[in-house]
Amino acid sequence: MASNEVEEAVKRINSHKGVMGVLVVNYDGVPIKTSMEAAETVQHAALITHFTQKAKGVIKQLDPDNEVTFLRVRSKKHEILIAPDENYILVVLQNPGSAFVNE
Amino acid sequence: MASNEVEEAVKRINSHKGVMGVLVVNYDGVPIKTSMEAAETVQHAALITHFTQKAKGVIKQLDPDNEVTFLRVRSKKHEILIAPDENYILVVLQNPGSAFVNE
Repeated sequence: MASNEVEEAVKRINSHKGVMGVLVVNYDGVPIKTSMEAAETVQHAALITHFTQKAKGVIKQLDPDNEVTFLRVRSKKHEILIAPDENYILVVLQNPGSAFVNE
Repeated sequence: MASNEVEEAVKRINSHKGVMGVLVVNYDGVPIKTSMEAAETVQHAALITHFTQKAKGVIKQLDPDNEVTFLRVRSKKHEILIAPDENYILVVLQNPGSAFVNE
């Protein structure tokens, strides 16, 4: 995806009802695109990248032929949706009562 | 919950279509109830407890007033549902195409 396509996608997702923030980060924890404020972006990027690596490690340890496709962390205040792609991780923060992704 | 109530709950969940395994584990990674085989139980209990602690840590670091209520790890081969309670963690492995919990 070209950079402007990524930007459009981030904007589109962010416009959904209940979406509190969108972040695209690489596996070094470097934010590529964000709808959040700078400090919040850096903190989320670092913690969520590390957490995603952890999840990938757990799944590989349980079965080396398996692979993480999607992660959801629901908390009292929001739900974090994490879609780990080959080079980038897409992170969406949504209101727990809303339904951007509610499959 | 009394031990036999936990056992009944594990059996009930495990009887749902698409459920591949149910595990109740404490925060030391000790399995309390399981529908899986011994080796699989021990491995899942250790890795998932550690992973749950990690998720709780991430959420607390992002906001000390927040708390994890539910985790889902979808992979190519299955989906792991993790419900961390005060003293125990309920873990359900389900077929990714099925819908025991599909909210």
